[in-house]
Amino acid sequence: MRMVDVIDHKRNGGTLTNEEIKFFVDGVVDGSIPDYQTSALLMAIYFNGMADGEQAELALQMLKSGDQLDLSAIPGIKVDKHSTGGVGDKTSLPLAPMIAALGIPIPMISGRGLGHTGGTLDKLEAIPGFKVELSEEQFKQQVKDIHLAIVGATGNIAPADKKIYALRDVTDTVDSIPLIAGSIMSKKIASGTDALVLDVKTGSGAFMKTEDQARALAKALVSIGKSAGMDCMALISDMNQPLGRMIGNALEIQETIAILKGEGPEDITDLVLTLGSQMVVLAKKAETLSEARKMLQEVVANGKALESFRQMVSAQGGDPRVVDDPTIMPQAKYKVDLPAKSSGVISKMTADEIGVASMLLGGGRQKADDKLDYAVGIELKKKVGDSVKKGEPLLTIYADREEIDNVKTLLYDNIEIADSAEPIKLIHEIIK
Amino acid sequence: MRMVDVIDHKRNGGTLTNEEIKFFVDGVVDGSIPDYQTSALLMAIYFNGMADGEQAELALQMLKSGDQLDLSAIPGIKVDKHSTGGVGDKTSLPLAPMIAALGIPIPMISGRGLGHTGGTLDKLEAIPGFKVELSEEQFKQQVKDIHLAIVGATGNIAPADKKIYALRDVTDTVDSIPLIAGSIMSKKIASGTDALVLDVKTGSGAFMKTEDQARALAKALVSIGKSAGMDCMALISDMNQPLGRMIGNALEIQETIAILKGEGPEDITDLVLTLGSQMVVLAKKAETLSEARKMLQEVVANGKALESFRQMVSAQGGDPRVVDDPTIMPQAKYKVDLPAKSSGVISKMTADEIGVASMLLGGGRQKADDKLDYAVGIELKKKVGDSVKKGEPLLTIYADREEIDNVKTLLYDNIEIADSAEPIKLIHEIIK
Repeated sequence: MRMVDVIDHKRNGGTLTNEEIKFFVDGVVDGSIPDYQTSALLMAIYFNGMADGEQAELALQMLKSGDQLDLSAIPGIKVDKHSTGGVGDKTSLPLAPMIAALGIPIPMISGRGLGHTGGTLDKLEAIPGFKVELSEEQFKQQVKDIHLAIVGATGNIAPADKKIYALRDVTDTVDSIPLIAGSIMSKKIASGTDALVLDVKTGSGAFMKTEDQARALAKALVSIGKSAGMDCMALISDMNQPLGRMIGNALEIQETIAILKGEGPEDITDLVLTLGSQMVVLAKKAETLSEARKMLQEVVANGKALESFRQMVSAQGGDPRVVDDPTIMPQAKYKVDLPAKSSGVISKMTADEIGVASMLLGGGRQKADDKLDYAVGIELKKKVGDSVKKGEPLLTIYADREEIDNVKTLLYDNIEIADSAEPIKLIHEIIK
Repeated sequence: MRMVDVIDHKRNGGTLTNEEIKFFVDGVVDGSIPDYQTSALLMAIYFNGMADGEQAELALQMLKSGDQLDLSAIPGIKVDKHSTGGVGDKTSLPLAPMIAALGIPIPMISGRGLGHTGGTLDKLEAIPGFKVELSEEQFKQQVKDIHLAIVGATGNIAPADKKIYALRDVTDTVDSIPLIAGSIMSKKIASGTDALVLDVKTGSGAFMKTEDQARALAKALVSIGKSAGMDCMALISDMNQPLGRMIGNALEIQETIAILKGEGPEDITDLVLTLGSQMVVLAKKAETLSEARKMLQEVVANGKALESFRQMVSAQGGDPRVVDDPTIMPQAKYKVDLPAKSSGVISKMTADEIGVASMLLGGGRQKADDKLDYAVGIELKKKVGDSVKKGEPLLTIYADREEIDNVKTLLYDNIEIADSAEPIKLIHEIIK
């Protein structure tokens, strides 16, 4: 088989055979296919797409290129959740302890943030002592013991994806549904979970700007998951404005604790309960979504969810006092309110640019090796639909430096005050 | 400027700016743009094409990446001809001396053959002693002295094209009109000619299989030439069956001499006169095509065209006795007739496969560094439309080995005898 013929097959609109996909993925990993041929194929896939079976095979072969976690020693149906990433999206952090509090094992492998989006691992590391790198054995044992662990990828997971992703980034082939789906699902299937709930974001702060794109990605993800024997569903949720009120690492841990106490903002609480209900049903702990939701509300009300979070923090080396006193996390030197320049109703808070503002404060990374400032971030005092009076604070900036005029300008430019606002619908669609 | 943004611009259907094209071509030549980004852009160009001005700029920048010949010291309007390549296509060889015999300078830079197509330089090298490598000074002096030289590229012509072509070959981006046109025209403009006649082949033996593709390429070539200030036109001519009767290096020189004596086959003679008339008019030596055609027929009739060929052979170190005795060129050991298996009319002689048959005999190259056997080839005794009786020879195989069953089978498989044949129209269209 010659790579140029594989490229030709896809370039001419054909469906790659399983042998061709295996040849490609193997060749990428062993280095026998040069990068210039890989990038030509990636661009042809960008233009001509992939059929359902074809993209599932791509994910499967990328998965087979590396290690797979075997979680069979952990009893019960293991469930996981994956989000395509957003601003203020700390969903996994309160969700995982709620699920674990119901005795459902949740072995969560998470990532770091880049650009305007935050990462679950970064937020957890705002807790003094918290370790996200566990050995495979430690990871399994912790999930057995307390039903819950949140860690970074262990071992050699989907090395084909690592190589292909690096090329996509520099050849303008990132935003291709089959390539995104293959990248996400190869890693998720490799993590050995039995069931998976996907939160596909849509809107200005999301990678998928339109609902059509988000739907196409959600369908691809679910279809790949199912073809790998995973119980799988996806929500399409809104990312036009940031989720919750807190953006920043320590700030989002603080909000997580509030949610686990039943004191969180309405939107993120609703999203957590909606995703969680699906997970409880997939784990066969409830028959209906409403029953599942009640169970989750109960573990919040009786403190078991918060206790589960505290156990995880403790098990992973973090200081469990954070639950009662979030100020043991790094605190910002300056808290600066941003007053409204006029009275009216908030009609827009552009999520990605507010994410960039938090990044500029030091809360996110411009490059993969940037160091984070856990203390900084933004607390939204108002959200879309809220009334505001001139001079009233729109938000509070948590900064570690005095000079933040560029951040203020960016924030003002991305918050609109009008006479009225269109309400934002949080959950757009469910894809099964 | 970042290459990934240039790729993005083209991938999203935009028209690259002159600055972007220059950035790309410069980066290819100086190595600052890695091959994987180049191939991604090439594939995006394959899918989204290029606008007229854009492809002209690409050719111009590729041209500027290397040396340009300055032919201003040669008096008169310099004309050249380029063919996209075919089987049995020795058109340049009789055409150039006819033009030169009219006192029109024809500084021709030619190429070598690959695959089923032959190359003008290879054919000339069948003449004992003939040299295709002249210094730039020798080349110019010879054109001044005898109006004619046919040589390989001198100096560092369009190095960007060399690099890009090598990548196109292995990334399945060869058959893109703007990329083909840029490759051809960057080299032709660099050769410093004032006027250019293009012979774009269409049909089974041509790179452009359909007339639509050939027309699109012809238009792109003419448009680029004109935008570079070159007087330019294109013919679309047929390449469904081989041109003339001879295929092979020495055999095509033999046929060239016959054409120059006015004894050549009808189809190739007609093509030579048609292309030649256009060149004479572009050189402003005649006002009408019919006047030009008569002038060409005259230099054939009075022997001046043949004399011009003899002068060129002599000037480039070749043995001029070849004109009177072609057998001083390498001669094949075996001449084997291929008898018709049935009676009827020849309805098909698939040009590319007959070219492959000649290549398999040793007359062409499978790889760029293959050595050629100048003696071997095929002499067609019948062409499409000719009647044939069972047992009568369809063609003669000139071979240097006894075992040629594979060649015979290939030839039989690609010659069809039927009750009737559709006539082949040689000149399809003229593009100005």
